[in-house]
Amino acid sequence: MQQLTCKLQKVYNWLQANLYPGMTVRNFGEIEGIAVGTEFDSRAALAASGIHKPTQAGISGSSTAGADSVVVSGGYEDDEDYGDYIIYGGQVSHDPNTKRQIADAELARGNLALVVSYNRGLPVRVTRGLGSRKHTYRYDGLYQVERWWADRGKSGYKIYCFALRKIDDQPISTPAGELPLPSSNLEPNLVKAYTTRTVRATEASELVKKYHDHICQTCSTRLDRLGGAYAETAYLRPIGRPHNGPDTPDNIVCLCPNCHVLFDSWAFTIEDDGTLAGVLEGTVNEARGHALNKDHLAYHRRLFLQAQG
Amino acid sequence: MQQLTCKLQKVYNWLQANLYPGMTVRNFGEIEGIAVGTEFDSRAALAASGIHKPTQAGISGSSTAGADSVVVSGGYEDDEDYGDYIIYGGQVSHDPNTKRQIADAELARGNLALVVSYNRGLPVRVTRGLGSRKHTYRYDGLYQVERWWADRGKSGYKIYCFALRKIDDQPISTPAGELPLPSSNLEPNLVKAYTTRTVRATEASELVKKYHDHICQTCSTRLDRLGGAYAETAYLRPIGRPHNGPDTPDNIVCLCPNCHVLFDSWAFTIEDDGTLAGVLEGTVNEARGHALNKDHLAYHRRLFLQAQG
Repeated sequence: MQQLTCKLQKVYNWLQANLYPGMTVRNFGEIEGIAVGTEFDSRAALAASGIHKPTQAGISGSSTAGADSVVVSGGYEDDEDYGDYIIYGGQVSHDPNTKRQIADAELARGNLALVVSYNRGLPVRVTRGLGSRKHTYRYDGLYQVERWWADRGKSGYKIYCFALRKIDDQPISTPAGELPLPSSNLEPNLVKAYTTRTVRATEASELVKKYHDHICQTCSTRLDRLGGAYAETAYLRPIGRPHNGPDTPDNIVCLCPNCHVLFDSWAFTIEDDGTLAGVLEGTVNEARGHALNKDHLAYHRRLFLQAQG
Repeated sequence: MQQLTCKLQKVYNWLQANLYPGMTVRNFGEIEGIAVGTEFDSRAALAASGIHKPTQAGISGSSTAGADSVVVSGGYEDDEDYGDYIIYGGQVSHDPNTKRQIADAELARGNLALVVSYNRGLPVRVTRGLGSRKHTYRYDGLYQVERWWADRGKSGYKIYCFALRKIDDQPISTPAGELPLPSSNLEPNLVKAYTTRTVRATEASELVKKYHDHICQTCSTRLDRLGGAYAETAYLRPIGRPHNGPDTPDNIVCLCPNCHVLFDSWAFTIEDDGTLAGVLEGTVNEARGHALNKDHLAYHRRLFLQAQG
């Protein structure tokens, strides 16, 4: 497997060097070999590590794939850094000397990339510029775009804001005297809430969403929103113990959130010919290249029937 | 505030003692003063602590409020314990000597209470019976019902199964030689997934859902399912920095998941008179006792307009 990966990498490197010189690889999530807390003495070194490839831009990303990384440099008037929670002022046109914003921000490029990351729940690497030591940067781990909005910044121009929340609960390593990071208790307005629903996605489920263009397979709803449509997926034969269903497209249906809630509570199931049974009527939508496995359909029907009491 | 709480507690105690002798308080979540890892030498001691009040039943809960606690005693044929992940075989009629199941389980009482906990995302306290030392129990922290299903158990009778996942990432303290808990890596089929959406609720948002009987305020959808309907809520003026909206019913709308996704992406807003603007048409549903605050509505409209680019 490692050999194959190695060979594929060589083929890829060749293709990149010879066919698409401008093409860049976008890696979401951790970069192998780069621990949280690693410091870099220049943007060039940071770029070479793969953590954040652009050497100038604060946001690494594309408006189709999403943003994989941001550099929070400090000093920008609309950024607020609370350690585990960052309000990131997005991409703006600013005066290079004063760092003051000089025009309205747009929902394009970097800002749109972060909206796409929000839409898809993609992890964003956060690197902080260490203000106390010029040209020093520290990779601080993965964050998620919890919310985005647009507002007037301190300059009076429009800005796009992104609330970034650290994904894991690991404290950020802060060498003494380096960067006075506020403690994670610095958000006094945090309301005590409990989680009622968590939606996760994998590579296979993203593929299924693409096959169906984010249209619900059972009710044909498509939730269009800025930065792309939203859909969820569900497994016919659940993954994990004790069902041990596979994470493959033939075990996955594309659903809108409403149908997903019903699906998870055994309110409907699907016959071999695609007919819906239970509280939903009609037939499941098909898409080229995406067929549901009959064994997994049968597995779901069995659990559906058992759950009916 | 502490004084007031104390006084209310006294009033409550008096009411409970004098008016509703059979009434029980159902506390969800942590019990103050009882640390994770605390051991008890009897079910009576466990009950007295408030962790798990019934002295016989494995599930503490009601079919209306949900289950607040379970005791995983070990030895039941359909339970599987992987430490951070437990497959709990639910409530069954069993032979007290052999512990073998002697009839089909029903979706009622304890089992229904756990389905309600799943529906509402309520935290469930887990206490383990320590097999190596008879009559010893250890409180092991908060779990969430990740999924439920029904199946045939090893006995051939019907069982309800509940996959319980530990809420926090704190490792379970396991005194050497006490209870050979498997490591949390014991779920090899765990698929690498990322979170695309997390839905949280507070006391205030639960109240708003009740006001509206779980009917979406914008599209009137009500997602009925076993154990109760499902709805979500959203804040007009977002809570947390920098918006600092309050967690109060007049700042909260009751939405179905689909409309919630649109709401969070600034696809629609609400006028003072309840008219919907943006991609949704019509008027917001009203409910007795639930009025939306005009300042918060104006705050949302301002952010909605800014986001339109």
